[in-house]
Amino acid sequence: MPSISIKGKKMPESPIRKLVPYAEEAKKRGMKVYHLNIGQPDIPTPEVALNAIRNFSQKVVAYSHSAGVLSYREKLATYYKKHDIHITANDIIIGAGASEALLFAFQTIMDPGDEVIIPEPFYANYNGFAVNAGINVKPIYSSIETGFALPPIADFEKAIGPKTKAILVCNPNNPTGYLYNAEELEVLRQLVIKYDLYLIADEVYREFVYDGNKHYSCMHLKGIDDNVILIDSVSKRYSACGVRIGCMISKNREVMKTALKFAQARLSPPSFGQVAAEAAIDTPDSYFEEVLNEYLQRRSTVVEAINKMKGAFCPNPQGAFYVVARLPIDDSDKFCQWLLEDFNYQNQTVMLAPASGFYSSEGRGKDEVRISYVLNVDDLVHAMKALEEALKVYPGRTV
Amino acid sequence: MPSISIKGKKMPESPIRKLVPYAEEAKKRGMKVYHLNIGQPDIPTPEVALNAIRNFSQKVVAYSHSAGVLSYREKLATYYKKHDIHITANDIIIGAGASEALLFAFQTIMDPGDEVIIPEPFYANYNGFAVNAGINVKPIYSSIETGFALPPIADFEKAIGPKTKAILVCNPNNPTGYLYNAEELEVLRQLVIKYDLYLIADEVYREFVYDGNKHYSCMHLKGIDDNVILIDSVSKRYSACGVRIGCMISKNREVMKTALKFAQARLSPPSFGQVAAEAAIDTPDSYFEEVLNEYLQRRSTVVEAINKMKGAFCPNPQGAFYVVARLPIDDSDKFCQWLLEDFNYQNQTVMLAPASGFYSSEGRGKDEVRISYVLNVDDLVHAMKALEEALKVYPGRTV
Repeated sequence: MPSISIKGKKMPESPIRKLVPYAEEAKKRGMKVYHLNIGQPDIPTPEVALNAIRNFSQKVVAYSHSAGVLSYREKLATYYKKHDIHITANDIIIGAGASEALLFAFQTIMDPGDEVIIPEPFYANYNGFAVNAGINVKPIYSSIETGFALPPIADFEKAIGPKTKAILVCNPNNPTGYLYNAEELEVLRQLVIKYDLYLIADEVYREFVYDGNKHYSCMHLKGIDDNVILIDSVSKRYSACGVRIGCMISKNREVMKTALKFAQARLSPPSFGQVAAEAAIDTPDSYFEEVLNEYLQRRSTVVEAINKMKGAFCPNPQGAFYVVARLPIDDSDKFCQWLLEDFNYQNQTVMLAPASGFYSSEGRGKDEVRISYVLNVDDLVHAMKALEEALKVYPGRTV
Repeated sequence: MPSISIKGKKMPESPIRKLVPYAEEAKKRGMKVYHLNIGQPDIPTPEVALNAIRNFSQKVVAYSHSAGVLSYREKLATYYKKHDIHITANDIIIGAGASEALLFAFQTIMDPGDEVIIPEPFYANYNGFAVNAGINVKPIYSSIETGFALPPIADFEKAIGPKTKAILVCNPNNPTGYLYNAEELEVLRQLVIKYDLYLIADEVYREFVYDGNKHYSCMHLKGIDDNVILIDSVSKRYSACGVRIGCMISKNREVMKTALKFAQARLSPPSFGQVAAEAAIDTPDSYFEEVLNEYLQRRSTVVEAINKMKGAFCPNPQGAFYVVARLPIDDSDKFCQWLLEDFNYQNQTVMLAPASGFYSSEGRGKDEVRISYVLNVDDLVHAMKALEEALKVYPGRTV
């Protein structure tokens, strides 16, 4: 039998999805499984987006421009303007999700063997994209003790080497929910100037910012237009993950010209998705107010519940819809599997993402889990109760 | 300014799209431009597919399974059964077009530096995917004199080296329209057994087979289940290029398990597209009968017209909707640009794809163009007339 590639063997399994078979078995046994493992919100997609799809009137579903439908990109520019981000349609390439957009960015600026610095814990699929592009992730440690604030500048400078081409941050952060402040953005600005690096910012959770905080975008940073690549997506903003529409944005002409060649090779982004995404820009503000209010309640439910559990701790994050919590457990991979295989509280259990998958450094995150608060408050109350009971009886508990 | 990757610099520009700015200029001057450069059919997408989209009733456009919606994959298996291809839902991974599916396949079986053998001329974007995956294309020459039949087995054996991992064929072929027969498929079968290679077959034009010929699929070949990877797409079959739904199919469990990790990293294929593609499987046979009849007339129109032009020649291909024609010209890149920039026949001109972009060997295809017969017969008659007149006055004509 012909062999598989070394690259294929190196591709990581998704830490979010690898427990799925256990969850399916649990459901077959009649268990209610609360899915807090994946960032798939239960919030309805805006009607304005769904109506655009229902009114689809083209006779031929044709290729779009490789960079995306022009009218969509033009309208996107007006969306960004509202966020004080000033770009034109030419600064945007639409991708099949932020996933494809980030892969375009990686391949445009990095060759196999090059390095990108990412504060860990980080979104696990960055590892997959890095293996895909043949590049290496150099993690620098951000700690639950600081609420996962940006690591000190000295840690970045220690990590930067001759192969370093970029710093990647996710802001607000998945998996930690941390929101970088203006001072932290300024640190990044100084770093990319001093070392001539790219700054890639994944800002797909831009709208999910709490407690009166302001979101600072990488595109707000002055004097580094050629260094900045913004990655974005409609998946979370409009609860439209399946639409598979994201984008990369940069004012660096050479970056955009090169990325377009990758975009042309795959012809075009999904046409239906672009129709929905273009219409979604007209989503009324009231939609976001309701959604934010809902997530605020969910966050409180989870954060308060966890901090009441014996030996458990989690920060109160200012953005996105995730928390990374420290639990009194020996091994989060074992614990999360045990929850699905062996635990039962009134026929209920919880599916969580072991945080180990969000760290690139071996051995980290063993007593941490990521919780997505994407279910309604009632479900979250039940889920937290089940988690509390689980921690009392888990054989590998440490308190 | 930070540098661009070497990979990015190596990415080829699409030979189909690089003339687009000249076409836009021509249109601004009031010219009617017949687009025979791109495989974007004018045939309506089946109503059954569009209705499924118009009736989309889910409240949340959620991620699907990374391999694609199960009900879609199950229904796809029934589609293949009709074509005597016997597979299950587990043998299928849905991609964002055949483009993504082929990239999954390349990365699953090949590492940077590995080689894939492809008869040339070949679909130009294979070059882009190869650069993307860091692999090398080893072209072997198929000649217009034989109608672009499969090169002799000795040519394959000469090209196979220690780095060769796969043979890739497109059947029916883009750009040549050539349909490989049972004997040619048998040659490929023997080659992959003897040298333990993968056989990747891009069969997106399966339905477009003329003159009572039968399509032989790579999946019909006996005893090489672990070697075969089928690449497919709904783009051409249902004139739904913008839907961005394709797939890779293999019975090799290790291939599928590894490819799924690449699929998981990008989360899921487009949800709307899958809804349309699933519904499209119910497209009535009468749709294909009409479409085939239409393409037959178009093919005759183009092939007969070209073979009447002085010094021009094109084979009468048995599949797809392309022909590669030899024209009495010095340089097809110059000629195709000249058609858009300098030529005018009753305010009309033609946009063609220079065949040079479909050859990997330097210097080949200079007197050849690819013509997509994706316009109606009336337009094709006008386009061929314009082409005939152009050949009479082109400064670089060779007869």
